[in-house]
Amino acid sequence: MARAVDVPELVQQARAGRPRAVARLVSLVEDGHPALREVMAALAPYTGQATVVGITGSPGVGKSTTTSAIVTALRAEDRRVGVLAVDPSSPFSGGALLGDRIRMQEHALDPGVFIRSMATRGHLGGLSWSTPQALRILDAAGCDVVLVETVGVGQSEVEIASLADTTIVLLAPGMGDGVQAAKAGILEIGDVFVVNKADRDGADIAVRELRAMLRLGDRHQEGAWKPPVIKTVASTGQGVDEVVAALRDHELWAGESGELAARRTRRASGEIEAIALTTLRERFGSFANGNRLTDLAVEVVAGRLDPYRAAGRLLDGLNGG
Amino acid sequence: MARAVDVPELVQQARAGRPRAVARLVSLVEDGHPALREVMAALAPYTGQATVVGITGSPGVGKSTTTSAIVTALRAEDRRVGVLAVDPSSPFSGGALLGDRIRMQEHALDPGVFIRSMATRGHLGGLSWSTPQALRILDAAGCDVVLVETVGVGQSEVEIASLADTTIVLLAPGMGDGVQAAKAGILEIGDVFVVNKADRDGADIAVRELRAMLRLGDRHQEGAWKPPVIKTVASTGQGVDEVVAALRDHELWAGESGELAARRTRRASGEIEAIALTTLRERFGSFANGNRLTDLAVEVVAGRLDPYRAAGRLLDGLNGG
Repeated sequence: MARAVDVPELVQQARAGRPRAVARLVSLVEDGHPALREVMAALAPYTGQATVVGITGSPGVGKSTTTSAIVTALRAEDRRVGVLAVDPSSPFSGGALLGDRIRMQEHALDPGVFIRSMATRGHLGGLSWSTPQALRILDAAGCDVVLVETVGVGQSEVEIASLADTTIVLLAPGMGDGVQAAKAGILEIGDVFVVNKADRDGADIAVRELRAMLRLGDRHQEGAWKPPVIKTVASTGQGVDEVVAALRDHELWAGESGELAARRTRRASGEIEAIALTTLRERFGSFANGNRLTDLAVEVVAGRLDPYRAAGRLLDGLNGG
Repeated sequence: MARAVDVPELVQQARAGRPRAVARLVSLVEDGHPALREVMAALAPYTGQATVVGITGSPGVGKSTTTSAIVTALRAEDRRVGVLAVDPSSPFSGGALLGDRIRMQEHALDPGVFIRSMATRGHLGGLSWSTPQALRILDAAGCDVVLVETVGVGQSEVEIASLADTTIVLLAPGMGDGVQAAKAGILEIGDVFVVNKADRDGADIAVRELRAMLRLGDRHQEGAWKPPVIKTVASTGQGVDEVVAALRDHELWAGESGELAARRTRRASGEIEAIALTTLRERFGSFANGNRLTDLAVEVVAGRLDPYRAAGRLLDGLNGG
C-alpha cells in the first residue's frame, strides 16, 4: 500500500525549504508511513533550531485569526514561520479545519511561511506520536518559529499545546464560560494569555478576572515566569506586537531558567515513548504472536480470565519473541 | 498514598448491589489504584451479563435528558440499570458534568439504578483503560443494562461509545451542523439514531437527511443491521419506548449474528492492550531502567539520536530487565 519514497531527495528538498517536500513529509507522518524511520534519522542533526509556540483555546475565540496575525508580525521581522494546525479528527468537528484555513490564505504565497494541517485519524499513537515528528520536519525545513494551533478543545489539544516551548492560551470576552473554563485547568498551561476580541463588551472584566485567578495560582517562586495577560483584536492586528514581544520574553526566560531544555526533553520523552508503545502494539497484533491478544480477549469475555492477568500473559509473550 | 482497601469485602458488597461499594470501586478505577488488579480478578466470574449501551452526540442535543428518559423506561420493565457518565476531562468543559447530573436526580433514590460519573484526568491509559473496568464493576453489581454516556464530542468519546454492545447516536434539529457533523464519521458507529427535540422545526428534515445518508452507507449486505432513525422529545418521554424497543431489537440481532461476541472481544482486546501498555509505561519510568527514557530524550533533543532509534533502545532495555 505504501508508496515508494525517495527519502534522501525529499529530505534535501525539505531542508532547502521546498514547500511541496515539506508537505509530503508531513503527509508521511499523517499516514504513519514506514519511511518515517529513515526520514527522522536523516532530519535529526538539523533540528532544535525552531521555537515552538502552542496556541489553544475554545472554538470562537479567534485562534486562526490570531495565528495569522502573529504570522504577519513575525514575517515583518523576517523570521521564517511554520504553522501546524493539528486536528484531532473529532468526527463531530469535521470541516471546521478547512474553513479556518481560509483565514490563513494571505500567507499562502509567502515562501517564508509553511502552513500544514495535520489530522491523525485515531491510528497509531495519535497526536503524541505525530505532532513532535511534524514539528521536527518544520524545524529542519528552516523555520525560526513553528506555531502549533490545535483545532479542538479536548484533553489531547491541551496536551499538544503544552508540549510547546511557549503556550498561548486564547480567550474572548462574552464567551460566557471563558473565564469559568479557565478555572478548569488551562491556567496551568498558559505562558501567555490573550484576551482576543477586546473591542467587545466585557474584555476588561475578563482580563481582570484572569489576572486575579493567575495571582491565586502557584507561580510565586522567585524567578518564576509571570504569565502576561494581553488584549488583542486579532482581526485588526491590535495588540499582536505585544503578544510577539511576550513570546520573545518567555523564550528568553525559558532559555535562561532551564525551562526550555526541560520542556524539550519532556517533549522528546513523550515522542520516544509513543513510538515505543506503537511498536509494541504492532507486535501484539503481529503474526509472530498469532492471535494471542484475541485469544486472551475471548477468555476475558467469558469471565475465565481477568484483564490484568491477560495483560501479564501478553507481555510475557513479548520476551519470548 | 493509596488508602488500604478491603477488596473481598468491597466486592461482596458491590455484588450485593450496595451503591456505596459500587461507587468506591469505580473511584479506584478513576484513581488507577493498585488494588484494581485484585478487584478485577475477583469480579471476572460475575461479568458478561449486562448489555452495554453507548450514548454519544454533540453538546446540546439532550444526552442527559435522553439517558434519564431511557432509564425511566427500563425501570418500568424492572431492569436494573447502571449509568456511567464518562468525562474525558477536557479542561475546557469542566463543570458541565455536574450540571448534567442534576437531570439524573429523579433516579437518585431508586435502588435499581446506579449512577456514576467518571473522570480520568489524563493519567495512565486514559479512557480505554478505565471505561471497560468501570463497566465490569457495574456489570458484576447486577446491572441488566449499563448506559455509557460520554460528555464530550471528541475522538475519545466516540471510541468509548463504539465500545458498547449497542451505540445510540443522538442528534437534534436546528443544531445547524447536526447532519453535517454526522457525515464526518458518526454514521458508522451508530446502531440506533435518535433525533431528539423532535418538536422543534427541522426535525423531519433532519430525519430525512439522516436516512438518506444511511442509505448511502455500506450496510447493504444480507442480514446487516439497518440502523433505525427515531424521533424523540426526551423531556416529555415521547418516542423513548421506541428507542428502548430498538435497543432490544439490536441486542437480539447482535446476539444472533455474532456481532455481540465480536464487539465484546474487541472491547476486551482494547482493555488488555491498554493495561499492558500502561504496565510498560510504568516500566519505562521505573527505577530499574534508571532515567533511561530521559537520557534518551536528551540525546534526541541534541539531535544526536533520532526518536525511532531511541525508542528501539528503550525497548531493548525491556528485555534486558
